[in-house]
Amino acid sequence: MRSVPVALKGVRVEGGFWGARVDQARDVIIPYQWEAMNDRVKGAARSGCVHNIKVAAGRKKGEHSGCVFQDSDFGKWLEAAAYSLATKRDPKLERDLDNVVDMIAEGQLKDGYFNTAFILKNQDKKWTNLRDLHEMYVSGHLLEAAIAYYDATGKRKFLDVMTKNMNLINRKFGRKKGQRRGYPGHQEIELALVKLYRVTGEKKYLDLSKYFIDERGRKPRYFESEAAKRDGKKSVDRVAVLRQSHKPVREQKVAEGHAVRAMYMYSAMADLALETGDKSLLKAVNTLWEDVSTKQMYVTGGVGQTASGEAFTYDHDLPNETSYAETCAQIGLVFWTHRMLALDINSKYSDVMERALYNGVVSGISLDGTKFFYPNVHAYHSRPDLDYYRGRPAERSPWFGCACCPPNFTRLMTSLGQYVYSTAGGGIYTHLFMSGSADIELGRKRVHIEQKTEYPWKDKVTIKVSPDQPATFTFAVRIPAWCRKPSLKVNGKGVGLKAITRKGYACIKREWKKGDRVELVLPMPIERVRSNTLVRQNVGRVALMRGPVVYCLEGQDNCRNLNQLILPSSAKLSMSQVTIKGRKFPAITGMAEKEETGSSDLYTTAKPTKTKCKIKAIPYFAWANRGKNEMLLWTRER
Amino acid sequence: MRSVPVALKGVRVEGGFWGARVDQARDVIIPYQWEAMNDRVKGAARSGCVHNIKVAAGRKKGEHSGCVFQDSDFGKWLEAAAYSLATKRDPKLERDLDNVVDMIAEGQLKDGYFNTAFILKNQDKKWTNLRDLHEMYVSGHLLEAAIAYYDATGKRKFLDVMTKNMNLINRKFGRKKGQRRGYPGHQEIELALVKLYRVTGEKKYLDLSKYFIDERGRKPRYFESEAAKRDGKKSVDRVAVLRQSHKPVREQKVAEGHAVRAMYMYSAMADLALETGDKSLLKAVNTLWEDVSTKQMYVTGGVGQTASGEAFTYDHDLPNETSYAETCAQIGLVFWTHRMLALDINSKYSDVMERALYNGVVSGISLDGTKFFYPNVHAYHSRPDLDYYRGRPAERSPWFGCACCPPNFTRLMTSLGQYVYSTAGGGIYTHLFMSGSADIELGRKRVHIEQKTEYPWKDKVTIKVSPDQPATFTFAVRIPAWCRKPSLKVNGKGVGLKAITRKGYACIKREWKKGDRVELVLPMPIERVRSNTLVRQNVGRVALMRGPVVYCLEGQDNCRNLNQLILPSSAKLSMSQVTIKGRKFPAITGMAEKEETGSSDLYTTAKPTKTKCKIKAIPYFAWANRGKNEMLLWTRER
Repeated sequence: MRSVPVALKGVRVEGGFWGARVDQARDVIIPYQWEAMNDRVKGAARSGCVHNIKVAAGRKKGEHSGCVFQDSDFGKWLEAAAYSLATKRDPKLERDLDNVVDMIAEGQLKDGYFNTAFILKNQDKKWTNLRDLHEMYVSGHLLEAAIAYYDATGKRKFLDVMTKNMNLINRKFGRKKGQRRGYPGHQEIELALVKLYRVTGEKKYLDLSKYFIDERGRKPRYFESEAAKRDGKKSVDRVAVLRQSHKPVREQKVAEGHAVRAMYMYSAMADLALETGDKSLLKAVNTLWEDVSTKQMYVTGGVGQTASGEAFTYDHDLPNETSYAETCAQIGLVFWTHRMLALDINSKYSDVMERALYNGVVSGISLDGTKFFYPNVHAYHSRPDLDYYRGRPAERSPWFGCACCPPNFTRLMTSLGQYVYSTAGGGIYTHLFMSGSADIELGRKRVHIEQKTEYPWKDKVTIKVSPDQPATFTFAVRIPAWCRKPSLKVNGKGVGLKAITRKGYACIKREWKKGDRVELVLPMPIERVRSNTLVRQNVGRVALMRGPVVYCLEGQDNCRNLNQLILPSSAKLSMSQVTIKGRKFPAITGMAEKEETGSSDLYTTAKPTKTKCKIKAIPYFAWANRGKNEMLLWTRER
Repeated sequence: MRSVPVALKGVRVEGGFWGARVDQARDVIIPYQWEAMNDRVKGAARSGCVHNIKVAAGRKKGEHSGCVFQDSDFGKWLEAAAYSLATKRDPKLERDLDNVVDMIAEGQLKDGYFNTAFILKNQDKKWTNLRDLHEMYVSGHLLEAAIAYYDATGKRKFLDVMTKNMNLINRKFGRKKGQRRGYPGHQEIELALVKLYRVTGEKKYLDLSKYFIDERGRKPRYFESEAAKRDGKKSVDRVAVLRQSHKPVREQKVAEGHAVRAMYMYSAMADLALETGDKSLLKAVNTLWEDVSTKQMYVTGGVGQTASGEAFTYDHDLPNETSYAETCAQIGLVFWTHRMLALDINSKYSDVMERALYNGVVSGISLDGTKFFYPNVHAYHSRPDLDYYRGRPAERSPWFGCACCPPNFTRLMTSLGQYVYSTAGGGIYTHLFMSGSADIELGRKRVHIEQKTEYPWKDKVTIKVSPDQPATFTFAVRIPAWCRKPSLKVNGKGVGLKAITRKGYACIKREWKKGDRVELVLPMPIERVRSNTLVRQNVGRVALMRGPVVYCLEGQDNCRNLNQLILPSSAKLSMSQVTIKGRKFPAITGMAEKEETGSSDLYTTAKPTKTKCKIKAIPYFAWANRGKNEMLLWTRER
């Protein structure tokens, strides 16, 4: 069944696990990142974002600074800030944004072009290298920001600027005479155009998005003819695979290439399948979903296994120490799941959304909100600081020269409300458990929802469902696949789940009256999780989870050489606590065994000796907040 | 106790495992590689070696082809061919070599310079970039070839040419006024100069070698000042570490950087410690030996863990799928062990020599002698042919653009005889077991040795010791550390090993008479070998060995997804056979278990199911002779 997400403005995330994160995003991260993008954070890599916009606007002298896609970092931050304004007004922030919007308008070229990297140098290079130079990618991000700002404030200026930009692109690219049959080297604009279509109702933007998706990978391949024109060189296959332009999207059966590009493209494919009813596209995106979610996804929801091309590798290949799992890719996975839910309410999507959120997404940021992982490793072993290992960091950084992840995280946090509920078939569907409230329009009804929970640390979720007047409709809650013994009460009375659960959602159809109380209990004992044995990196190993949260061993709480540990499958595990940077988190403790060779022999016929050894596992997302440390997620099992 | 290797000319390797390899090297590989270096092998990468020499000699028109160090491939082949002539005359081959020597002489510049890459272009660049351009490396290899050719034939021309070349280098580099304080970017000439000192008796060559070793890594570091002079850029630390020039060699406590450079340098350090009695150098090389042999060596004798810089990584880090273990590095390890034995007769060196020879060295070549592994992986998992994995091949190649390994293997094979025996303290020491004979001068005595064995497949080694007249001396045989129950008889009478074994050698001191018979039995049951538990990649895993030979599972004989297999420590293993390319090899068979998830779930709380599964392990060196296949050396153990 198709569904429509409840928009951000109607949902408040307050208190609990996510309320704290959203508050932090608004109160700490947005201001911190504004400072970073103004190049005022000591010890952080230079951003140049605000500088570039100022120079392009003619308000400052100087040269372009940073990468060719530097504006996109800023676009994501603007979008994050706009979402924040949508849920909480902040006149000072709004003034800053207005000022930025003015500068963008001042910098925009007459024909609608905007990209400071090209405006400030190489204007002649505009649109000559779609493959590598990210112009449409930047436009897409700025468009998303403009739409968010319009939604939040009702102000049209930014939207108008970016619409003009889209109109330029729409004139320049396509299949009509005089147009170039190009498409972006880094997908992003496709999903932004669908948003623009939704906000304006203008079908040409949907068509442009569809054109980009349909044209991609068709022969003759645009990037090849473009490269030949530019420098006479042939574009190589790897370059195409990394951009998912090696074959038409409908022929792509497994996730390949750059993971963030893939996530954004699959999101757009889902959007287009929804908006156009294109069945071949739906089939293609479903096939890709099955591949990613059942063969190429880390237990944390991490995607994109290798640093080489920041890319997917192949089915059932999930290396831990070398995992790339870029924070942006996990965020992109959340975007994609959200769109898959719109196509079909099925908890296989929202379960993955939850998995990514509590693990691979949140691991991307330090507990204090000011340091970031770009790639996320799934094991870390102490080693000398050799440059073979650059890009597999054990500590988060205050910023990056290419700072795509930090503001991506921020925009996800400040827009988190929109992922919680959908409406479908006259009912309300609850995907995520987080304290807060919502006001949902259901046809002509208006339903007020109050959710209270200490999830994911406690198993109880209480939801008050209050229609403005008594009405019969379905109120549904996701029953996570990880939960073995869920139970549900409505107004204190038990409800049999089996009969009412469809595609992972318990659908309670009844007449709802103000203050009706849904109580969901999701018992979350410690679970030992095993990978499919086809994942050779994890055979004979176990991960610990409690509820949706993945745990890991960190050196600080345990011994060195964590791979010497074996956790017997019979070992009793119990919950305890750990304090990290002054915050308390649940931890899992138990008795394991430590295997040691007992000599300095490198090879021996002797079996290692075993000694008892207490272990403590902490939430994966909380690791690396106490300095450089070993970390192991998949522990050997006996 | 110091020792002197018995030189190649006195030793014949005939029949058995190594006799067949030496015959193949002489009859198949040398002619094949001559064709390859003449660019006459279809489908093989272009070599250009002979072409370059011809052009430099003015006998052909053309440009230089290949890498700046292309002559070194040829140097190693010349050396291999010379060794072959030392043990078996071959007038046709000798004529070819004489012709090549003539061309080298014709191409040599007046001042003694020789390197076709610089003679044919960039003469002005000579000696301007010792760090990267391999001039001394090439000279070192040609010098080794020249000495081998002189030893084999008594002809001085090639030796004179290369001595002139060394004299040029000796004038140009050093600490005297007007000299540059340079040293090679790729070590090799140091050990060649020690050979030249030994063959000529001229101490200046020993001094030059000593200067190169002593100067290396001293501040101000030559490569940095050279780089500054050349292009104003500062040389970076990684560049220095890769060349072992980051600090003085006596301060290097762990093996770091490019593995082949390291092996050649450590060999020269051992040579110099021997020749000069330098205790600090001896200490340094002993420290490096302990590090490599007990913390950074694969069970196959492979060294140099990573493709990144073809380098060592760090202690107890021995990745299997990504192992580099360049064939040249294992060959270099054999060179080094040989020199360590000269410093001290201790089976810890000859055990490693044996380990490398039967495994990591021989794995570098196909059974038919015409295809080569440059890096040697220690596990191979089926995967799409993505270019992330270039450089981790599952199949050997007919040649390489940079073909350092193939002729390196050849020269080791044709000089193998020199590794078998040493003399020390008036006695004879047997390091390796291989059929053949030797004539050894022991003071004024002459001892004829005949060794007969089907080692490593059978456990019995029979050695006839025949002095020209009865004499009392020590005849010693290595007792391999892998052997639990060795036994020894002299003329049919048992000898207690404990009392006579010193540093791993059973030393039989008695009056020897013509035809005395030493019978060594080295029972070789199948052994389960475990890595030190500090090697995280191998914890919980077992390797199978029988005698010195390491076995592995290859896909063709087993199932797919070899990591699903578990070999119970109680499982009975027995010897069987495998036929590969028409040749029979011993194999190990037994019943293992196969773990399977039994569903397509990527993550599950269920334990995998186990089914019985027969496995067959083949010698590691014989893998990849039947097409692309999975391979696993370290099997999970229960």
